[in-house]
Amino acid sequence: MAAVADEDSLRRALAQKQSSIDVQGGAVRQLKSSGAAKLDIEAAVQALNALKLEKASIESQLQAALAGAAGGGSSSASRDAFRQAVVNTLERRLFYIPSFKIYRGVAGLYDYGPPGCSVKSNVLSFWRQHFVLEENMLEVDCPCVTPEVVLKASGHVEKFTDLMVKDEKTGTCYRADHLLKDFCKEKLEKDFSLSAEKAAELKHILAVLDDLSAEQLGAKIKEYGITAPDTKNPLSDPYPFNLMFQTSIGPSGVSPGYMRPETAQGIFVNFRDLYYYNGNKLPFAAAQIGQAFRNEISPRQGLLRVREFTLAEIEHFVDPQDKSHPKFSDVAKLEFLMFPRDDQVSGQCAKKLQLGEAVSRGTVNNETLGYFIGRVYLFLTRLGIDKDRLRFRQHLANEMAHYAADCWDAEIESSYGWIECVGIADRSAYDLRAHSEKSSVALVAQEKFSEPREVEKLVITPIKKELGLAFKGNQKMVTEALEAMEEKVAMEMKADLESKGEVEFHVCTLGKNVTIKKNMVSISKEIKKEHQRVFTPSVIEPSFGIGRIIYCLYEHSFYTRPSKAGDEQLNVFSFPPLVAPIKCTVFPLVQNKKYEEVAKLISKSLTAAGISHKIDITGTSIGKRYARTDELGVPFAITVDSTSSVTVRERDSKDQVRVDVEKVASVVREVADGLSSWADVLKMYPLHSSETAEE
Amino acid sequence: MAAVADEDSLRRALAQKQSSIDVQGGAVRQLKSSGAAKLDIEAAVQALNALKLEKASIESQLQAALAGAAGGGSSSASRDAFRQAVVNTLERRLFYIPSFKIYRGVAGLYDYGPPGCSVKSNVLSFWRQHFVLEENMLEVDCPCVTPEVVLKASGHVEKFTDLMVKDEKTGTCYRADHLLKDFCKEKLEKDFSLSAEKAAELKHILAVLDDLSAEQLGAKIKEYGITAPDTKNPLSDPYPFNLMFQTSIGPSGVSPGYMRPETAQGIFVNFRDLYYYNGNKLPFAAAQIGQAFRNEISPRQGLLRVREFTLAEIEHFVDPQDKSHPKFSDVAKLEFLMFPRDDQVSGQCAKKLQLGEAVSRGTVNNETLGYFIGRVYLFLTRLGIDKDRLRFRQHLANEMAHYAADCWDAEIESSYGWIECVGIADRSAYDLRAHSEKSSVALVAQEKFSEPREVEKLVITPIKKELGLAFKGNQKMVTEALEAMEEKVAMEMKADLESKGEVEFHVCTLGKNVTIKKNMVSISKEIKKEHQRVFTPSVIEPSFGIGRIIYCLYEHSFYTRPSKAGDEQLNVFSFPPLVAPIKCTVFPLVQNKKYEEVAKLISKSLTAAGISHKIDITGTSIGKRYARTDELGVPFAITVDSTSSVTVRERDSKDQVRVDVEKVASVVREVADGLSSWADVLKMYPLHSSETAEE
Repeated sequence: MAAVADEDSLRRALAQKQSSIDVQGGAVRQLKSSGAAKLDIEAAVQALNALKLEKASIESQLQAALAGAAGGGSSSASRDAFRQAVVNTLERRLFYIPSFKIYRGVAGLYDYGPPGCSVKSNVLSFWRQHFVLEENMLEVDCPCVTPEVVLKASGHVEKFTDLMVKDEKTGTCYRADHLLKDFCKEKLEKDFSLSAEKAAELKHILAVLDDLSAEQLGAKIKEYGITAPDTKNPLSDPYPFNLMFQTSIGPSGVSPGYMRPETAQGIFVNFRDLYYYNGNKLPFAAAQIGQAFRNEISPRQGLLRVREFTLAEIEHFVDPQDKSHPKFSDVAKLEFLMFPRDDQVSGQCAKKLQLGEAVSRGTVNNETLGYFIGRVYLFLTRLGIDKDRLRFRQHLANEMAHYAADCWDAEIESSYGWIECVGIADRSAYDLRAHSEKSSVALVAQEKFSEPREVEKLVITPIKKELGLAFKGNQKMVTEALEAMEEKVAMEMKADLESKGEVEFHVCTLGKNVTIKKNMVSISKEIKKEHQRVFTPSVIEPSFGIGRIIYCLYEHSFYTRPSKAGDEQLNVFSFPPLVAPIKCTVFPLVQNKKYEEVAKLISKSLTAAGISHKIDITGTSIGKRYARTDELGVPFAITVDSTSSVTVRERDSKDQVRVDVEKVASVVREVADGLSSWADVLKMYPLHSSETAEE
Repeated sequence: MAAVADEDSLRRALAQKQSSIDVQGGAVRQLKSSGAAKLDIEAAVQALNALKLEKASIESQLQAALAGAAGGGSSSASRDAFRQAVVNTLERRLFYIPSFKIYRGVAGLYDYGPPGCSVKSNVLSFWRQHFVLEENMLEVDCPCVTPEVVLKASGHVEKFTDLMVKDEKTGTCYRADHLLKDFCKEKLEKDFSLSAEKAAELKHILAVLDDLSAEQLGAKIKEYGITAPDTKNPLSDPYPFNLMFQTSIGPSGVSPGYMRPETAQGIFVNFRDLYYYNGNKLPFAAAQIGQAFRNEISPRQGLLRVREFTLAEIEHFVDPQDKSHPKFSDVAKLEFLMFPRDDQVSGQCAKKLQLGEAVSRGTVNNETLGYFIGRVYLFLTRLGIDKDRLRFRQHLANEMAHYAADCWDAEIESSYGWIECVGIADRSAYDLRAHSEKSSVALVAQEKFSEPREVEKLVITPIKKELGLAFKGNQKMVTEALEAMEEKVAMEMKADLESKGEVEFHVCTLGKNVTIKKNMVSISKEIKKEHQRVFTPSVIEPSFGIGRIIYCLYEHSFYTRPSKAGDEQLNVFSFPPLVAPIKCTVFPLVQNKKYEEVAKLISKSLTAAGISHKIDITGTSIGKRYARTDELGVPFAITVDSTSSVTVRERDSKDQVRVDVEKVASVVREVADGLSSWADVLKMYPLHSSETAEE
């Protein structure tokens, strides 16, 4: 907030200084044209130059203030450079490859190359272990091709849109909000002549950008004279573009379909079968890992905003009257950065909260939601996400769907800013109700009472004969309106009829009031016995963008360090063994038959122990071979420099220990599988002096 | 073949009998109309009836012969009943679910429910272990959305089609070949008045069905008067329908894209990067697991012919001059059913061959292809495919693409007949060349020679001045034609020019002969030094239809056996532990706190050992609980009937052994992980007498 106040006063100072310059400039011109004395003119010019210097100084203060506010410490340029270094390494080592590269690619589509594919598969199998197996979730696997009726029910056909504008001459499409956002940011960052009032206006637009209607966006684009970025041509009015890839199922052309925008709908439509499979018991969770699609108007932000991505979604179905969670105590003590709605509105920062307190104070709506927040925190940090660059941000009222009870995003800080990577939403009964209505199949749960319960029920009995006499052709509509009365209205009518004998009653379908007499309807409350309660379950949905998590992990794991000779910077990915694409490399120190034999023997034991590894028997220097594997994030390297014992090197500390050939596979397995730590290994085995190490 | 000869003579006998009946019927009518004696008429009628009886007997012989030929032993009705039993069990236990069932589904789309999802994930992780890890393959993961240019290069835009006909009134679409096939089969099976000649014609059509052009198909449909099956309306002429799901990438509508029909193209377009990643060395293989799509005209055959499916594909790149494989000896001794091209053409059956011999005799084109055939055999049989219902069928000449060097399908016998589940093709350099041409990026490999090699090279030098004088405006075309001569043609010309001084030479681009004289061109051979050889690698492609393999596995694993009381048939899936969706169940024998505690203790040890399992503490009888898990194919059940030792039951034998509580998790882990067999367990632990077992 301090930075903003600064910025404001600096903009005002700048405007003042500019008007002083204008005045002084005028004075100089006047002196010159009136043929004043040379000395006087010189003095006036000097004063003008002094003012200009002062203006320049304020400008650079403003520049610094803006950079500070935007970057949270690091400058935008240094963040770009860092990202470039990460992305270069990722692309050079084939963690990912722009898809269809030899055909100059397609924006927003990327391949996972061999190490990236391995990281992804490690992340997914840890996800399965941490969520599906741990909680006995029911995993399903549904197709990507989805018929229109399903996505009409879910609301995607109508609402899964972005506002788009077209270059009126070339037809090139742009996201309307992106253009307005870019314009405002550019102005704020680079236009020092901007008045403080104008700056405040642009900032307000940035804050409410997501809430602007097509008309409002269009008006602003017109007002600011924003044109197509590439051609400067005029732009069309904004209109909604549906972000689903559309296709046609079967040959007839009459069955529209879409590539699913999320995996969740496949679970909702199967609710009835899954509930039965679970023995008709709540709560239970279903889960799905799979591809989802989003036909972005113009993808930006590299690997973060793509047109096809892997989602891992959980739908936890729960009784809306009981959202407690039996295992909540397992996570209640966790403390991490949370960013509740109120703190965002009042301009505070995210702060460390204890999860148990956040739930008991009502900051987080319920225990089950809280439980998943805690489990997501554990999942992400165990993968290697830096806990200081991870926060849980609550949705603001305007961000949340009307039906949602509460919603928190796990956001990870990257060079692009804070990125939503996991959404954890209590979606209430919305989705099941929507599909129930559209399909006419009841998606409900039953709670069987251990013994029948007595329930007071409202009974409204219209007396058809009297109503017919009184209302003739309108009888049916009056009858229906009477039957549809809510309890409160009905009980008021009952009281009025008893005291006054008749009452005015508004019938919507007739659009007028009618007079209801005492003999036309009987209203009473009766006690009934019920054996079960039937209800639509609430669903709590943690939804993981796997590609985004992996990209943030790359940024959090990347660092550089000087080579031994100090002549170059070497890249390292400090992946934990859990996600490292390869757990271990095996090098003979020099090319030598005996050492190669030992290396192959060790490789066999590693295979038997299930540790993915690679042998490198090229004659390259050991230092270069270490550098190569550091860049792939391989945590351990075994170097064969004798036939009896070998060295094991840890990637980040570069510490080496000496271990017997027979033992080395099991030592590496223990640290790679997380059964022991590198510190444990250091205690157990002698540190290897680096004399033979070429590093 | 015997059945066919039978059928033929039976049809002839039937035709003869019919004409005898016609003659005798005429005789009866004549006797009646001429008022013959009653006894004479009766005798004639008796003779007619005798003939009719004989005809009926021949008809039933024909019926039997047809059923025998079609069913290979089991009747079509019993195969349908078996399939229905399997499919009912699969659907009831949620191995799979028709997708979007509450909206009445979409033909050809299925979900994997919880146990099916688990089987699939087991099959895929075994695939990764058996192929990717074992051979150090480079796994990649590419998007499903694919731009048109890629699928134009691969030929899919032009050729990935089926021929379709439309009901001319309702617009309903059918596959043209399916209608013709159904017509021929129906006629052959049910029309006993068919002449032997007509039967032979229909059989010929069935044999060549895949080779018929749109015109030929259309002519046959007209000739036989085939109409729309549902409405009997007339049909349109057949025309090609592209089976790819089409979509549009981005908002402009000018970038057509398709959902990939196979995963292979994603690998081919990355060849250059992958080759570099592999240190510029051949051979190497890349692999990919992912969704593929096929917009079937009218899907049939349930889970076998679907519109979206998981493929696992390997592209093994190899020097076309050296297709040997260093590990071929590992599989050379394997013997299994093979069905070479020649045996198919000469009407023989598949027979057992030794793989090593099949390669050395040239039946299988090369060692690398043979190696993968062997590895596929091991993969499928380890999953639980019955080796007697698995055969490798070589493609006939008319089935194979013109560029393919050889191609074998792993076919599995199911209730639908022999089903292609894995294709193993040597596709030569076709795919890389196609993408090289279309993208103008060289997708080639280099073989660096250890020392430069001397290569004799043809050098053709046209003498432009003389050619210009002789051919004026045609000079350029003559020059180009000379330069383009192949070695043989050039050396003949050289000889002719030396002996005769001139020679007639055909210039294609001019469409005529010209006379070339000795002074117009110099032809020689020179020795040049080359440091490397540049070539397009061949690719050997094993491609696995994962869903088909799983469905066949379900059929091969399914059997029924009577319940103990003998009052019902119980279903069992005899999955090997490797693919079983759950490895083990844990039951307390009776509902009892102490037993439940023991069960939970065992569950914890099983979790620690990484064995997927389920506790069932419902009060259901132990027999019913066993039946429930047998139906899911759970191989082992632990029943807690004391606090010190428990019983372990094997699913198929129903044998039980008694094991100490502390040891039971490790015993189950050993058999579930395949480290020991159930026979080993029987030797180690006392058989449990079934007195307490309720089964």
